[in-house]
Amino acid sequence: MKITMLAYPGMTPLDLMGPLQTWTFWPGAEVQVVWKHTDPIMTDTGMAVVPTHSFATSFEQPEIVFVPGGTKATFELTQDEETLDFLRTKAKTATWVTSVCTGALVIGAAGLLKGYKATTHWAAKDLLSGYGAEVTDGRYVIDRDRATGGGVTAGIDFGLAMIAEISGEEIAKVAQLAMEYSPKPPFNSGTPEEASAETKKLVLEGFAASSA
Amino acid sequence: MKITMLAYPGMTPLDLMGPLQTWTFWPGAEVQVVWKHTDPIMTDTGMAVVPTHSFATSFEQPEIVFVPGGTKATFELTQDEETLDFLRTKAKTATWVTSVCTGALVIGAAGLLKGYKATTHWAAKDLLSGYGAEVTDGRYVIDRDRATGGGVTAGIDFGLAMIAEISGEEIAKVAQLAMEYSPKPPFNSGTPEEASAETKKLVLEGFAASSA
Repeated sequence: MKITMLAYPGMTPLDLMGPLQTWTFWPGAEVQVVWKHTDPIMTDTGMAVVPTHSFATSFEQPEIVFVPGGTKATFELTQDEETLDFLRTKAKTATWVTSVCTGALVIGAAGLLKGYKATTHWAAKDLLSGYGAEVTDGRYVIDRDRATGGGVTAGIDFGLAMIAEISGEEIAKVAQLAMEYSPKPPFNSGTPEEASAETKKLVLEGFAASSA
Repeated sequence: MKITMLAYPGMTPLDLMGPLQTWTFWPGAEVQVVWKHTDPIMTDTGMAVVPTHSFATSFEQPEIVFVPGGTKATFELTQDEETLDFLRTKAKTATWVTSVCTGALVIGAAGLLKGYKATTHWAAKDLLSGYGAEVTDGRYVIDRDRATGGGVTAGIDFGLAMIAEISGEEIAKVAQLAMEYSPKPPFNSGTPEEASAETKKLVLEGFAASSA
């Protein structure tokens, strides 16, 4: 199972790390983290990560292509023809094209979500519909050969779901137990429906600031 | 709020990334990711990360010290006097000494959990009690100036709890909504009590192999 995970400067690295760590418990998964080069790339946490491969040296025909999200950097990536071409090329032979959070906007911009049910970060759903996707509620959404996760932390649920979809539930359950994934959020504020109006306002203001 | 997060070769990076990403939504948090040097360090996912500071150049007196977990690399770190001395020195003036997953074994080995209620990855609880900690159930455990999270994914819950403890629930709720932390694990297999005997056996075998 050859997997190509895109990484890029300014990304939200938990979007990537959720499925990446989950897939360390997936027997047979061969994961490459790829960008245009293999120098360290800064993330929106202030910590840099190092791609394992460049576009040029990465898998010729990965079975899974994955794109993580972010804010300003991600919106800029939706205009980056080199990256969009790379994704379109890999998508031709990939079994799955996938994303977490606003990564969906990038595969959308590549034209890879037209007519597909898909999801993204709650605050980016309107943007996603602009790419011809049928925006759908769900922690993750699987529609034929596309799988898209919600915002940031949804990458763990998405990662487990992909293992289950491809290799069966028993393997996914082992990964879940290995990562002690029995989440207990201390508050009930994880969706715009659950959060207070004031909390939602503050998040939207923060996103506007980090997207400018 | 000066925060020193340890990183080290072979660590499980989601242990670090959970709280690191969560704390990007914590106004006033200044986070350094530190190791003996600032060259890229390989993690157990196959992707390297880059420390922002070395032990020598990191905060003189951080308010929070944090240690992530892993398997073999973490057990080896419990014998590494340079690291244990660094942690003991920072702990003298820190307001909080904290960990996620088997990171608790490292702060335990530094003598920093004696007489404290603490937790760790479910498969490492026996080891933790060997360091004089009072092993306690909980997604995270806060006892006076110590805060310890359970296995891997518990870092997100831990990260939110620390924000709430120090800066109040309203700030933590904003972080939770920004990260869309409304987890929906696809299976009920996140704890040894919930998982099947066969799943538990497979995880324990995997840990034994990755710890050797």
